[in-house]
Amino acid sequence: MGMTITEKILAAHAGKKEVRPGDLIEAKVDLVMANDITAAPAIAAFEKIGVDNVWDPERVVLVPSHFAPARDIASAAQIKRMREFARRLNIKWFFELGQAGIEHALLPEQGLAVPGMLILGADSHSCTYGALGAFSTGVGSTDAAAAMATGETWLRVPESNLFIFHGKLRPWVSGKDLILYTISQVGDDGCRYQAMEFTGEAIRSLSMEQRMTITNMAIEAGAKSGIIAPDETTLEYVKPRAKFPWTVYQSDPDAHYARVFEWDASELEPQVSFPHLPSNTKPLSEAAGIEVDQVVIGSCTNGRIEDLRIVAEVMRGRKVHPRIRCIIFPATPEVYKQALREGLIDVFVEAGAVVSTSTCGPCLGGHMGVLAEGERCLSTTNRNYVGRMGHPRSYTYLANPAVAAATAVAGVIADPDDVIKRTEVAL
Amino acid sequence: MGMTITEKILAAHAGKKEVRPGDLIEAKVDLVMANDITAAPAIAAFEKIGVDNVWDPERVVLVPSHFAPARDIASAAQIKRMREFARRLNIKWFFELGQAGIEHALLPEQGLAVPGMLILGADSHSCTYGALGAFSTGVGSTDAAAAMATGETWLRVPESNLFIFHGKLRPWVSGKDLILYTISQVGDDGCRYQAMEFTGEAIRSLSMEQRMTITNMAIEAGAKSGIIAPDETTLEYVKPRAKFPWTVYQSDPDAHYARVFEWDASELEPQVSFPHLPSNTKPLSEAAGIEVDQVVIGSCTNGRIEDLRIVAEVMRGRKVHPRIRCIIFPATPEVYKQALREGLIDVFVEAGAVVSTSTCGPCLGGHMGVLAEGERCLSTTNRNYVGRMGHPRSYTYLANPAVAAATAVAGVIADPDDVIKRTEVAL
Repeated sequence: MGMTITEKILAAHAGKKEVRPGDLIEAKVDLVMANDITAAPAIAAFEKIGVDNVWDPERVVLVPSHFAPARDIASAAQIKRMREFARRLNIKWFFELGQAGIEHALLPEQGLAVPGMLILGADSHSCTYGALGAFSTGVGSTDAAAAMATGETWLRVPESNLFIFHGKLRPWVSGKDLILYTISQVGDDGCRYQAMEFTGEAIRSLSMEQRMTITNMAIEAGAKSGIIAPDETTLEYVKPRAKFPWTVYQSDPDAHYARVFEWDASELEPQVSFPHLPSNTKPLSEAAGIEVDQVVIGSCTNGRIEDLRIVAEVMRGRKVHPRIRCIIFPATPEVYKQALREGLIDVFVEAGAVVSTSTCGPCLGGHMGVLAEGERCLSTTNRNYVGRMGHPRSYTYLANPAVAAATAVAGVIADPDDVIKRTEVAL
Repeated sequence: MGMTITEKILAAHAGKKEVRPGDLIEAKVDLVMANDITAAPAIAAFEKIGVDNVWDPERVVLVPSHFAPARDIASAAQIKRMREFARRLNIKWFFELGQAGIEHALLPEQGLAVPGMLILGADSHSCTYGALGAFSTGVGSTDAAAAMATGETWLRVPESNLFIFHGKLRPWVSGKDLILYTISQVGDDGCRYQAMEFTGEAIRSLSMEQRMTITNMAIEAGAKSGIIAPDETTLEYVKPRAKFPWTVYQSDPDAHYARVFEWDASELEPQVSFPHLPSNTKPLSEAAGIEVDQVVIGSCTNGRIEDLRIVAEVMRGRKVHPRIRCIIFPATPEVYKQALREGLIDVFVEAGAVVSTSTCGPCLGGHMGVLAEGERCLSTTNRNYVGRMGHPRSYTYLANPAVAAATAVAGVIADPDDVIKRTEVAL
């Protein structure tokens, strides 16, 4: 019996010909990442281990993202701890403010995550890098510390589920809608400790950025990892930027999957996840008209350049509704620069949105747009748990960037086509 | 005996021909301003008064600036309180996120502060509007509430001091340097409850924005107000934007001043205020070479378009030193848009700085760049008290935007000329 791409990557890193779901393995790690929330406890754990240096200073990545620029004295101290650790140990990939962005957008963009890698990230959305055909998973700070010290980790090989999306996507339907729909079908813990492998015509037609949106949210179904096998699109993305050698793995035709889901993507309309769970997802037509106070566009899920292009397409020449605060977060400085070059930032600020530095910001209720009691927000982010973006009695709806832009203009959750048809454009 | 401009404005608002320092007067107020920190207690006090509405909904200004976009649930609640108050009472000048900026840059820019007005602002830097030839002072939230209810306030007429700056400014010397020098000469409470009136060739040669930097910091000498008599520069600035009628007052030749200071501005080099008091100011040459961790450019003191142009002049084609976090805050959305149009934002991000939304942010240790223990920051802001920008053992140096830009590039406090000469430009 063949192996899935996930099993092949894990076997290779465990130095075995074959692994099977349930196997406990010790595996070599290619990259360890921590951010300003998770690095400080990881460093504390690392220092207890008592080794002189990390196993490979060129394979540790430290990124201030969540509370950067520093939100308060405590977060300033967390970032300082990470910075000093990086300087002392000559860690190559510490990103200072100005170079730093949201890690899950930054690592692929900077060529630090490449196909075939085994990546541990001390952040739950580290599953994002699976879009590149890597095995990548979120771990706790102590696991990250152990991997930083030894270059190894232990894992139970997960079962794999296969998600096949047939057909072509309708206009305004994106990777975000595929993953929201998937989560609505399997549930928030429907893939607990499993790998989610995505394939099919609709997936192959997606850009790398859209694919990252999908694997990014694998954790929202409780998965250990999400993965998409590399194809030409992947290699076109990887080649000009890779900082490490890569290996392309593919699932065998006779690989075993715990479950196989097949859906017709051409039937999907944009999806909206209602409070308070990502799985509480309905078609946009059932959400349209709901009044919101704030629109947040950005995050590791949807803060990349293609996302901003879509937002600009809807927003160009239009105005953010006077009742709405619209906050846009380019995910990295490179995204910000590219958006500047393309005139997207102009579109946003002329519309009345504000554009922030690259930060996780309000996605986790961190800063830069936290919600008050009773407020409703439509957001391109990844979680809408109780209190996720602010007060326990605030309400977050998740959607794709086109729906977010349309909602910002309309003042209520809106279909981009309707907004484009109904609102005059002043160009 | 004649009257000073301050006495004339107060006399007019008290309905008297003449007032003298020490007189207690009841005066009509032309404008009342509060921000996201001060509005909520002002609203609470207002509601205790028991009137139905503010005395004039077209003369109350409410601006979320300090912790906006909302830093946390508490600040979100403060802003919400202000927003709901504004909606309920039809207050004309509530600025929503996207329109809101730092109030002391926003009110002059939007033509809400004009010559001859009596303005109360529930923020200590409300003395800024004195640059337009208005009497403007910071008050507590309860005084602001009483003025919102009645359109009146009581005041003790302050003594006036006259500061005459002769001569022409050297290159890179700005309004910021004149006021830092002034404070260094009179001390941090050297003008307690007095008006500071600025005049002379060097003042007349300054743009309105530079003049605002001067009156902005009158409070740093303990003054009740700072003022500059209107001239052609003032009226050119006011005419295209005024939302209210204005009146030009001038001090009489025989007006009485408590003290008159005369200085030769042409002798001044750029000034740097050392921790932990604005009065602890020395010439730049005595500060050059001090290592810093962060450079902050922005605030009600120095976040206007001319400030950003100067920063871009120094930064263009250069890079922020790799050890430095450089955070730039355009003071208002209009400043941000103008900086975009002129390509200044490109210069900043290409150099490796980050550009934030318009917020007071780290100036008050609020968010977006708070300092950790032991860190040093050079900032274009207005206060360097113990703990002002973060940890009680952090250190803030105040300087003008040119020095800030040079410091960002050099990594140490630096002379703009030296940086321009020494560092290659990659254009």
